[in-house]
Amino acid sequence: MTSRQVSKKQDARRGGPPQLPPTAWAVLGLLSFPGERTGYELKKWADSSLRFFYWAPAISQIYAELRRLEVLGYVTSSRSGPEEPRTKRRYAITAAGRDALTGWADGTEETGPAVLKHPLVLRVWLGHLADPARLHARVREHVARTERELADVREALGRADGVADWAHPQVALRWAERQHLAELELARAMLADLAELGPPGAAGRHLPHAAGQLPPHITGQLPSGTPTDG
Amino acid sequence: MTSRQVSKKQDARRGGPPQLPPTAWAVLGLLSFPGERTGYELKKWADSSLRFFYWAPAISQIYAELRRLEVLGYVTSSRSGPEEPRTKRRYAITAAGRDALTGWADGTEETGPAVLKHPLVLRVWLGHLADPARLHARVREHVARTERELADVREALGRADGVADWAHPQVALRWAERQHLAELELARAMLADLAELGPPGAAGRHLPHAAGQLPPHITGQLPSGTPTDG
Repeated sequence: MTSRQVSKKQDARRGGPPQLPPTAWAVLGLLSFPGERTGYELKKWADSSLRFFYWAPAISQIYAELRRLEVLGYVTSSRSGPEEPRTKRRYAITAAGRDALTGWADGTEETGPAVLKHPLVLRVWLGHLADPARLHARVREHVARTERELADVREALGRADGVADWAHPQVALRWAERQHLAELELARAMLADLAELGPPGAAGRHLPHAAGQLPPHITGQLPSGTPTDG
Repeated sequence: MTSRQVSKKQDARRGGPPQLPPTAWAVLGLLSFPGERTGYELKKWADSSLRFFYWAPAISQIYAELRRLEVLGYVTSSRSGPEEPRTKRRYAITAAGRDALTGWADGTEETGPAVLKHPLVLRVWLGHLADPARLHARVREHVARTERELADVREALGRADGVADWAHPQVALRWAERQHLAELELARAMLADLAELGPPGAAGRHLPHAAGQLPPHITGQLPSGTPTDG
């Protein structure tokens, strides 16, 4: 894409949203509902919504994004008065912040691909180096953890249920519920695949390609004009 | 967990593997198969295996990890001789590297949870700010991209098929195939959920909680002893 095209895209909607990371938009999104919120409230809220499909922010990340958004004029903050037992700083979205957020949420730029980092599958990929029984146990631990998370998703869905204005977050949470159910099915299918390689506890450890055979992932992969590297 | 427990866990297996990021183990894992590889070959290989469940490394990241692993004595490298048309540096795993990798792949420390960053679901979560037709189009773009990726996974599976020693990478790739099929189902179910909110193009944009109602994700969330923040 040329810089002219980029500029045209950014101009498409009252100047276009500035270049901010999605985490900044996510925090601003939390503030797009009426009312002021403390950083702690935003953190709790993220833990029962954003966490299931995007981001489980540390409280320090929430504050870092709030500072960035305040500098941009997208949020304002105020300290609570002496009538409260403890002083709190509350944040609210500004009109400029709401405009920018809408520009991002409804913009024309492409939605990036999903990023998935699955350490369990990485371990299975290197399963030739692992004890089969231990590998099975890792997968079962993942199943148990996913079941606990599914319960959390369903609790959040229960709280959102019947709130008419909460329609889109409900769609996102239903996606998360199905995603967790799929994750459980995937893990169980992987357990069955691993069991076919030999029962847990069997002497299944061996180094692959002992005869020096090239990994099939590489075979046929390299173009003839492999550039110099290193 | 106390530091004593951590230390005990690390001692469980011949001193325990050093603290390296999973990306370093992933690159070392690519080298755990016989033969020497250039950084470019490792990159191509990662693109048809690791990419589907863990990491799509830039070539610069591959080289950064190789440098780190070489300093640790886990890989060695050598330059090709003058008989090759272009000079190449090839990397090989050392005995110490293989021991450390096995210690990690078969270690007792917990496998971390999967990390998922799904920008599309974040957009849907903020769907009250978006034009319904544009939101539907975003989901359909995700379906098309996922279908292309599924074809890549199946191509990699085809290359791995029938290679007996490639059993665990095949299990990982079969997981990736099912994961992509699940991702397609999830996206289609989300399209149906969005369609229920109103047909694409309908005037569906509105600000939720116009009456100042608290988001249900927060209601009932905050413990009574909310700490001071800000």
